[in-house]
Amino acid sequence: MKATVLHAAGWVDVIDVPDPAIEHPGDAVVRVSLAAVCGSDLWPYRGQESFTPGDRMGHEWVGVVEEVGADVARVRPGDLVLAPFAFADGTCPACREGWFTSCPAGGFWGGGNGGGQAEAVRVPFADATLVPVRADADAELLRRLLPLTDVMATGAHAIALAGVQPGATVVVVGDGAVGLCATLAARRAGAARVILVGRHRDRSALATRMGATDVLSADDPATVGLIREATEGGVPGVAECAGTQSALDLAIDLVRSGGTIGSVGVPNGVDRVDLYRLFRDNISLRAGVAPARRYMEPLLADVLAERLDPSPVFSAEIPLDAVATAYQAMDTRQAVKIAIRP
Amino acid sequence: MKATVLHAAGWVDVIDVPDPAIEHPGDAVVRVSLAAVCGSDLWPYRGQESFTPGDRMGHEWVGVVEEVGADVARVRPGDLVLAPFAFADGTCPACREGWFTSCPAGGFWGGGNGGGQAEAVRVPFADATLVPVRADADAELLRRLLPLTDVMATGAHAIALAGVQPGATVVVVGDGAVGLCATLAARRAGAARVILVGRHRDRSALATRMGATDVLSADDPATVGLIREATEGGVPGVAECAGTQSALDLAIDLVRSGGTIGSVGVPNGVDRVDLYRLFRDNISLRAGVAPARRYMEPLLADVLAERLDPSPVFSAEIPLDAVATAYQAMDTRQAVKIAIRP
Repeated sequence: MKATVLHAAGWVDVIDVPDPAIEHPGDAVVRVSLAAVCGSDLWPYRGQESFTPGDRMGHEWVGVVEEVGADVARVRPGDLVLAPFAFADGTCPACREGWFTSCPAGGFWGGGNGGGQAEAVRVPFADATLVPVRADADAELLRRLLPLTDVMATGAHAIALAGVQPGATVVVVGDGAVGLCATLAARRAGAARVILVGRHRDRSALATRMGATDVLSADDPATVGLIREATEGGVPGVAECAGTQSALDLAIDLVRSGGTIGSVGVPNGVDRVDLYRLFRDNISLRAGVAPARRYMEPLLADVLAERLDPSPVFSAEIPLDAVATAYQAMDTRQAVKIAIRP
Repeated sequence: MKATVLHAAGWVDVIDVPDPAIEHPGDAVVRVSLAAVCGSDLWPYRGQESFTPGDRMGHEWVGVVEEVGADVARVRPGDLVLAPFAFADGTCPACREGWFTSCPAGGFWGGGNGGGQAEAVRVPFADATLVPVRADADAELLRRLLPLTDVMATGAHAIALAGVQPGATVVVVGDGAVGLCATLAARRAGAARVILVGRHRDRSALATRMGATDVLSADDPATVGLIREATEGGVPGVAECAGTQSALDLAIDLVRSGGTIGSVGVPNGVDRVDLYRLFRDNISLRAGVAPARRYMEPLLADVLAERLDPSPVFSAEIPLDAVATAYQAMDTRQAVKIAIRP
């Protein structure tokens, strides 16, 4: 089958690899219907995160079950399924408390595990990992569902960590797909005012469409003062959705005393957390990779009921063979996010 | 009157200073009944925190109101009062939400403000700051009340930040007065098992008396493994009560996935917060100087009802003139905490 690999920084390619097969009785093999390129795929692509040449790529994908192992009971061949970006056994202490991304037996797609930017994936712990979708999926519904596997769940996690309450004002730092999904999630949680602070002026209309009431520039030196003044000293909750030093620093500048930063961007080059500043003003820092599996069922219900539509994060949908152009377009910020059709 | 000042690192002294007087209509002048030396007083005493020679010392004290300004209505001359370690106006947005230590008009005792290791103190915003005690206070009750002005409130804050639930197992890092008070606070919050991790074997009996079910050494390399094994991968809440790099690192090692560190030690030389580690396991870091004022009334009710007694943190009580020996004894760890009688 075809699969995307990272040969070297700046060089992704689609190559022929062996078809995946059932290796353990809890496995499933799933044929990919739609996948995506994630902002975090760009870190190794840019050489800003270590990788092994030949690593499989892609951790956001939905598909149809093709084959299951002897112990799999919850999903069946023919089921449309969502795969969270991490697989997990569902039975360990961490999983039982809903922290699926901390499962010692679990892992993340890509690298030595299968990748979703491919024609098929072997899924360990299929019953615990996969979420069946009891609906006929057309191309449009697939685009609405695909973000639930990562960016929409991660945006929802940011808002949950930040403790956003109905009627609240929240700041979202970062106008990438996660920040845009956190904006949607904030409105879903009942936030009255969602201030998106980003770096890309051309995403302003999209941010508004996804629920932002205010869109401000992270590069404008007036932004911090404006927000602190409008909110009497900062907001109770900030969703940090970039994972960079400047995003974290901005979040700390914008949260009020006693407030909470929900930080879901994969930390990249963050080497300074000002503990004294957090201490002085009782600022809680709740950083965490989203246990996406926990969020997917409620989000799925909202998508199927047409109360939630994160599909506007996709700037385009292209064939798997053209995956390299998707990386290029996202790397150069010409696209927010691109869907890949095998 | 007599007051304690820090002349230089290692050199505190009691000198004669002008008597405090009402300067603003919201002020009170309070005659000190009992004061204490705090672990955080040792940082400047050791030259590990900047100070100005001649700085007044002491932020833990109780006393009797001597005189009040024209606008003071809630406390009256003759009232026994507790003073939290920070004064605050009680009306700003931070105070209205209970974050008194972030009050822009407020401040901390010591330095250019009055210090509690003295015969009297001028108290700004007396109505908002002071907590009257409606009881006759003998020497024993004063020792039970004095910790509420800082270390007991700070211990309670650590347990609140760590989100300790009834029946839970909690780790307290640090066997100083704050750690011992956090142990008491954990039991008060209903924790079933309180594991105190400290550095001083001679405090073990005291820790047990204050509610610790297990006392382990921070310096024993087996401690982390023992606790993680006994708690199936760590505890849901850790109270970090030292403020050092090693205490924070230990707290991170002992908290389980999805757990919370309540960190109340004044950060001292902490230059490394491993954000990636927090992110990977969804560990919340809630650092904060205790808004002591918020905790004092419920703690006071418990002390008066004889449900709470933090006085064992005091190793000794000595006269103000001998304050230098109190600093020496605490600096050399011969005493946990010493009370000072003017």
